[in-house]
Amino acid sequence: MRQRLWAEALGSFFLFATVVGSGVMAERLAQGNDAVALLGNTIATAAILFVLIAMLGPISGAHFNPAVSLVMRLRGDCCWKGLAVTVAVQVLAGILGVWAVHAMFDLPVLQFSTKLRDGPGQWLSEFIATFGLITTILLTARHRPAAVPASVALYITAAYWFTASTSFANPAITLARSLSDSFAGIAPASALPFIAAQLLGALAAHAFDKAVWDPA
Amino acid sequence: MRQRLWAEALGSFFLFATVVGSGVMAERLAQGNDAVALLGNTIATAAILFVLIAMLGPISGAHFNPAVSLVMRLRGDCCWKGLAVTVAVQVLAGILGVWAVHAMFDLPVLQFSTKLRDGPGQWLSEFIATFGLITTILLTARHRPAAVPASVALYITAAYWFTASTSFANPAITLARSLSDSFAGIAPASALPFIAAQLLGALAAHAFDKAVWDPA
Amino acid sequence: MRQRLWAEALGSFFLFATVVGSGVMAERLAQGNDAVALLGNTIATAAILFVLIAMLGPISGAHFNPAVSLVMRLRGDCCWKGLAVTVAVQVLAGILGVWAVHAMFDLPVLQFSTKLRDGPGQWLSEFIATFGLITTILLTARHRPAAVPASVALYITAAYWFTASTSFANPAITLARSLSDSFAGIAPASALPFIAAQLLGALAAHAFDKAVWDPA
Amino acid sequence: MRQRLWAEALGSFFLFATVVGSGVMAERLAQGNDAVALLGNTIATAAILFVLIAMLGPISGAHFNPAVSLVMRLRGDCCWKGLAVTVAVQVLAGILGVWAVHAMFDLPVLQFSTKLRDGPGQWLSEFIATFGLITTILLTARHRPAAVPASVALYITAAYWFTASTSFANPAITLARSLSDSFAGIAPASALPFIAAQLLGALAAHAFDKAVWDPA
Repeated sequence: MRQRLWAEALGSFFLFATVVGSGVMAERLAQGNDAVALLGNTIATAAILFVLIAMLGPISGAHFNPAVSLVMRLRGDCCWKGLAVTVAVQVLAGILGVWAVHAMFDLPVLQFSTKLRDGPGQWLSEFIATFGLITTILLTARHRPAAVPASVALYITAAYWFTASTSFANPAITLARSLSDSFAGIAPASALPFIAAQLLGALAAHAFDKAVWDPA
Repeated sequence: MRQRLWAEALGSFFLFATVVGSGVMAERLAQGNDAVALLGNTIATAAILFVLIAMLGPISGAHFNPAVSLVMRLRGDCCWKGLAVTVAVQVLAGILGVWAVHAMFDLPVLQFSTKLRDGPGQWLSEFIATFGLITTILLTARHRPAAVPASVALYITAAYWFTASTSFANPAITLARSLSDSFAGIAPASALPFIAAQLLGALAAHAFDKAVWDPA
Repeated sequence: MRQRLWAEALGSFFLFATVVGSGVMAERLAQGNDAVALLGNTIATAAILFVLIAMLGPISGAHFNPAVSLVMRLRGDCCWKGLAVTVAVQVLAGILGVWAVHAMFDLPVLQFSTKLRDGPGQWLSEFIATFGLITTILLTARHRPAAVPASVALYITAAYWFTASTSFANPAITLARSLSDSFAGIAPASALPFIAAQLLGALAAHAFDKAVWDPA
Repeated sequence: MRQRLWAEALGSFFLFATVVGSGVMAERLAQGNDAVALLGNTIATAAILFVLIAMLGPISGAHFNPAVSLVMRLRGDCCWKGLAVTVAVQVLAGILGVWAVHAMFDLPVLQFSTKLRDGPGQWLSEFIATFGLITTILLTARHRPAAVPASVALYITAAYWFTASTSFANPAITLARSLSDSFAGIAPASALPFIAAQLLGALAAHAFDKAVWDPA
């Protein structure tokens, strides 16, 4: 249990730091060319996802994401208390990662995003993005488990580009990104509907899997 | 059979959504820099191809492409009726994927592309692109089956850039892209010759394989 | 033997078509931003190298490169006549690939590059690029053979950027690129010193391998 | 021992040449668009890291980095004298790689960087970057050893973007980069604090590993 929580903490720290840090770096260098900025943001995020899932998957499952932990709880992972502690660790370590980025880039540590991300298109994006992420994890783990690190990394690569929201697909990262007024930020007022859409997408993927792929 | 069709539906939905959605996103962000837009479009498409083939290949073969399904039928996959149903599922689920993109990006769901893609250079491009795709699938499956997801993804990566048409290489995706007036679109009037060139390329690759690589 | 030559022909056709075609596409779209153009050229070339080596390596060794074939002859591959035929196939099929690109992009099929690439910096670049390529092939095949397709693709990815010549590292492709007045071209007058530097680099890598890595 | 040192020399030569050479190339082509330049620099560096670690890892461990060699010495690699010789080889071969780049690009071979990289944000960046690198190496080698070449390459991909310093994470490369007045350079006066932060990060990762992951 101790190693599991350390794995979730270490992974959330580096994952969230990469999502936000690469956004800050990309925005600084790209001089308004947002497509190039998103390319840098995408490549860095996908890269660290592969690294973290490959090395921490055998320890904790490498969730770094309350939506994933919730589905795993529904499929038999130990107990609601374990879920609560895991989610708390993901959120806190992830926020530390964001603050570490602010310190590295000489920005105020404590800040709030002002970037509104609202409307049905955004919420549908988060529903589809999370539905696809959970489905990818469940089906790949069943049919080609060695490919999970690459597949999750590449799913997020695609989802950064095919959804209108650039695919947060993670309630903890949504909270953490509300604390950074930068490329990857999201205004706190926009965070709650994002999280709701993500949880609905995760539950839909879980139900879809039970109905179609794993009917036993 | 039920799982096979669900796999083709799920895969076509996410593949076509990624091709069109990443085109919309890239065009929005790239501000006229089409090379950067094509980079984003390429990376997203290749990424989702790996993901979908790795997780759905063991279920349905992961075609998402009538030209591939046709060649597999010619090589022994069950029956013309099965082919017809499979192709119908690919087209319908793929169109749903395109419409989901329009909904995510707050665009009119029903639209038609106005981007003409005509002339012998374009048709030769589709012939060569599909010839190479089928050859890649057949030879890689024979000599290094574990590499099929990566090889198909990377073949399309190359073909987006070395053909003049950016390599549709898929009749279902050609139809679906005619329903999106965006970066990845193709005018309905240009679709039919594209599909003809793709089917000719697929049949040529099938004949080439029989003659040279699999003469038994 | 028949399959070996078909494999070298198919591979050289698609490799050379990708190198030149992605250069044409990148130059058209990038509007003078050569760094973006080189990114597209790099990604497409690396992608097709992985695909071709994975699927054709088991048949012919997947050389597509007279410098590689020469070293393999020196290390025991059958006979000088076999080498001559192989090289002829690589050059002819590769030139066909370049001409197919010109046809796809509605360019005159027969053309000559006017891009001079001269001087000691360029020649040193080709020497080092080819030295590194041969060393990569020999050491990876010995220590981690399953990684050869990825390693060759990624070596060329790096070499496109760390050499001043963008790493041709292949006498056949140097000849073929002299027949395309586009991004990837090289003036015929510059080709001979390139080829000399490449062959010297290949022989140096062969000698280095014999002296240090494979002294038995 | 002889092969081990040759492996560290060969790897450091090509790694450092790629880091600096791709920076020169990117800066020349990118015309002030630093985000595109960093993309080229990132892709080339990650690519060569995979290649070198895959082929030289079985011979020398593929450190190319005094911070890695130090941690491996603390974990049982043979003797302080061996460490000193290894580090000397890494530094000297790496500097040769940088000078080879200058020769390839027709630049003065001997030069010093004028790019100051100072302040707590930069030093924290190097501490975190090296901490993450060592942790990635130790945990991946323990849990998924076949993934080490890909994971180290992709960790550096992410770290180029999520740290404010673009992640040197290597004392030898810091010294070598002080000898190149180009995109990847660092003024000699800034090098010492970088190296100190890197060594502290490496030692912290070593202690963290002993405390949490490998308590036996």
